[in-house]
Amino acid sequence: MTRRSRRVREKPAFELEQLPVEQLRNPFPPIEVLSQESLDLIHDGSMRILEQIGLEIVNDKARELMVQQGATIDTDTGYVCMDRELVMEKISTVPSEFTLHARNSVYDSVIGGNYINFTIVASPPNCSDLDRGRRTGNFEDYCRFLKLGQMFNVVRLFSGYPVEPIDLPAHTRHLDAYLAFTTLTEKPWHCYSLGNGKVEDALAMIKISRGIDDHTLKTQPSIMTVVNTNSPLKVDVPMLDGLMLLAEYGQPTVVTPFTLAGAMCPVTLAGALAQQNAEALGVIAVTQMVNPGSPVMYGGFTSNVDMKTGAPAFGTPEYARAVLAGGQLARRYNIPYRTSNVNASNTPDAQAAWESEMSLWSAVMAHGNLVKHSGGWLEGGLCASFEKLVLDMEMVQMIAQTLQPIEVTEQDLALDAIKEVGAGGHHFGTSHTMSRYKDAFYKPLVSDWNNFETWQENGEKTATQRANELYKQLLEIYEKPPIDPAVEEELGAYVEKRRMEIKPSW
Amino acid sequence: MTRRSRRVREKPAFELEQLPVEQLRNPFPPIEVLSQESLDLIHDGSMRILEQIGLEIVNDKARELMVQQGATIDTDTGYVCMDRELVMEKISTVPSEFTLHARNSVYDSVIGGNYINFTIVASPPNCSDLDRGRRTGNFEDYCRFLKLGQMFNVVRLFSGYPVEPIDLPAHTRHLDAYLAFTTLTEKPWHCYSLGNGKVEDALAMIKISRGIDDHTLKTQPSIMTVVNTNSPLKVDVPMLDGLMLLAEYGQPTVVTPFTLAGAMCPVTLAGALAQQNAEALGVIAVTQMVNPGSPVMYGGFTSNVDMKTGAPAFGTPEYARAVLAGGQLARRYNIPYRTSNVNASNTPDAQAAWESEMSLWSAVMAHGNLVKHSGGWLEGGLCASFEKLVLDMEMVQMIAQTLQPIEVTEQDLALDAIKEVGAGGHHFGTSHTMSRYKDAFYKPLVSDWNNFETWQENGEKTATQRANELYKQLLEIYEKPPIDPAVEEELGAYVEKRRMEIKPSW
Repeated sequence: MTRRSRRVREKPAFELEQLPVEQLRNPFPPIEVLSQESLDLIHDGSMRILEQIGLEIVNDKARELMVQQGATIDTDTGYVCMDRELVMEKISTVPSEFTLHARNSVYDSVIGGNYINFTIVASPPNCSDLDRGRRTGNFEDYCRFLKLGQMFNVVRLFSGYPVEPIDLPAHTRHLDAYLAFTTLTEKPWHCYSLGNGKVEDALAMIKISRGIDDHTLKTQPSIMTVVNTNSPLKVDVPMLDGLMLLAEYGQPTVVTPFTLAGAMCPVTLAGALAQQNAEALGVIAVTQMVNPGSPVMYGGFTSNVDMKTGAPAFGTPEYARAVLAGGQLARRYNIPYRTSNVNASNTPDAQAAWESEMSLWSAVMAHGNLVKHSGGWLEGGLCASFEKLVLDMEMVQMIAQTLQPIEVTEQDLALDAIKEVGAGGHHFGTSHTMSRYKDAFYKPLVSDWNNFETWQENGEKTATQRANELYKQLLEIYEKPPIDPAVEEELGAYVEKRRMEIKPSW
Repeated sequence: MTRRSRRVREKPAFELEQLPVEQLRNPFPPIEVLSQESLDLIHDGSMRILEQIGLEIVNDKARELMVQQGATIDTDTGYVCMDRELVMEKISTVPSEFTLHARNSVYDSVIGGNYINFTIVASPPNCSDLDRGRRTGNFEDYCRFLKLGQMFNVVRLFSGYPVEPIDLPAHTRHLDAYLAFTTLTEKPWHCYSLGNGKVEDALAMIKISRGIDDHTLKTQPSIMTVVNTNSPLKVDVPMLDGLMLLAEYGQPTVVTPFTLAGAMCPVTLAGALAQQNAEALGVIAVTQMVNPGSPVMYGGFTSNVDMKTGAPAFGTPEYARAVLAGGQLARRYNIPYRTSNVNASNTPDAQAAWESEMSLWSAVMAHGNLVKHSGGWLEGGLCASFEKLVLDMEMVQMIAQTLQPIEVTEQDLALDAIKEVGAGGHHFGTSHTMSRYKDAFYKPLVSDWNNFETWQENGEKTATQRANELYKQLLEIYEKPPIDPAVEEELGAYVEKRRMEIKPSW
């Protein structure tokens, strides 16, 4: 026992070499997959959907507000219709950029413009690793994902529970989940827009953790939620309740239609995008009816289903083009754009990697401002994978590094070194190389660049196996970020008080 | 035995569902990673290298030609120096676009402009698959790669031996390799620029297979070679011999400096790119001195080494930015641009996939016209993998499909279908879906979009395992493309005649 712990102590501490904490900006112009004419046609189609078909708004308060501000009710269907003038007027107050505040201001994150913010996976019911396989989401794994998300600098914020902690009682689960967010991490986090009660708890805990009052909260976005429409054309009670409360408090909602072409929307990309746009703008308009100028994001999630099985596919060519087109639509309305790092693989293999890369490159080329699910998403969102999280962090870091400028000073051009080495020599030992080599290149997390023989000697491990080792090493060295003990105590007291108050609904 | 073969016959024949044969064009503008000022500085740096340091040209004929046309010899080093005016004048005759002719004109391929052409892996000494592991290159595997390259429509041409057939005698190996190219495939192929003899055999066999004479050959590029400089700043005898002979015949050479930052060139990207540019333009100038207007390509291959081990790394952030910058340089001189699909993984895993995706996306965003090694490259080029070939074909197909336009007609917008389905319904059964679903979306080669349970029942296979199955299925159904028996006979006779003539050099 003693010898063992001594050996552990003597081992040099493992250190994570990674990119620095940084507010990443995209220096490249966005890629436009739609001509101006096609973009106009999709816009026009979406306006005709809102004018002539409408949205089913299953929430009396929201319906009343919309009618009060100029919407009409279709007498046949009961759907809420809006003229394009009304839609355009309402969304004109959406801020093109806002800052999401964190408990530690180092992680305050600008959302909009050419900023890119990566998050980790959100909302799967299952999680997995190579050691224990696939299992139902639980609070222990939930906390492990939070710790990893806190440790990777390239993760700016959390945009949902990385895995649903199903072992906790449903009616108070959010309290434990929020407490973990506020204490295990110091980055901005997320609450689910599922009725007013859970949102109110989130707002209360944000105020405690940041030491701010209602007034400051209303001017400082500090928590985010995502509202998926029940595509096609439907939005439900609890989501709208939460969205309206958050808008009242000036907290951002990401409005993301769940438009899988061939299932919840037309099989054609143009039809899918027109419907996505109608649903997104229709719900975004509601936030501005509640509180003009409150921050909100345009979420693009259009992908296709596998027409043989009906299963959703992600990171496909259709998905990539929809992401690019979605960016064009969001820019047309000057609204910050949310996209994702998604794939439909059932295991963290080569397919998971290429579908993720298709998602990441199209997100960057579309000028996505928030790239949700950037670490750990698997199985089209049904599983959070610890190995995939590490593989994703490598992919995201590589993308982030690709966005760095190439320095071209006279020293960078290195003509003296080129002359010194001459023809047929090598640059390993030059003073130009020696003074720069340590930080010259991207340092990988798990990529293995050894030659074949060394790789064989090291056990012939795949990237996924190396990711398994790294995530466990990281959890061993995780340190809880500092927090004022009085704040932590107040948070704990709030949670316990609310735990007693909230009744399970049977 | 009888029952078994009957069962095989009764099995419905396996069919490869893939993208059609197409000359792919890139509709997007290129991404520019260098500002105009930085681009000018790199250009200027490269001109100073050619003016003040020079290239070691280890070939008397080439040196004489260069001096005759205005170059000078540095008296200290013996290197050949060229003023920038001379370089710019010489490269001004390079055609910005040319057509590479195939035995089957369906595969005639335009190189330049916004055309993209994918090839399979070239030149590894080893090959591997999951069944038999890694082995030394041999003629049987060489032929299997050729058959697969012939079968995938997204492969436009061959740009080298997919694996070196080391079991064949070195002095006549090229004859068997060329005969296989001309009979097992009908796409444009490649000869190595290793002295005049082997190039002359290639030209002779091209003429026989295409039924053309010297005069037509000189106006119709029909075979390609790649010349790697011996970076830094050196070019050897046999490469220059071959390059000059091919230029004389109007056949294209891809001039690709082998500039790994930190090893064969400076550790800084700017220095690496300046050296790449100097070497590329210096050698491209030689082709135009031989035959003004002969086709040639600018090859970009700058990557970095792992500074811990000195091993080359590929598909890194440095590589991606060098690819983008190389495209800007090639466009500055109006020369078609060659790039690659590369990775440094030792096994066809997630790392191999993400490094390949980094290569492919940057190739597309850089407007690469020829993407070499697009199928099967592994281990930084030391191994050709059958599984990686299939995985790459999926990635390349997905990229190709992403470049297709989004159709936006009134029918595509599908407002009637959206109205018909209404809120909360689904589009699976609409006539709009039913009439389009078969060809609505990209059909994958090996991506598995089944749900987790079905994937489990199917044996929990990774994409790499599925690729292993697919490549073997494809070889079973491979059919030799039609060839005029007289032509085939003449090719065979030529090879046998030359086999007798060529003496091994001891």
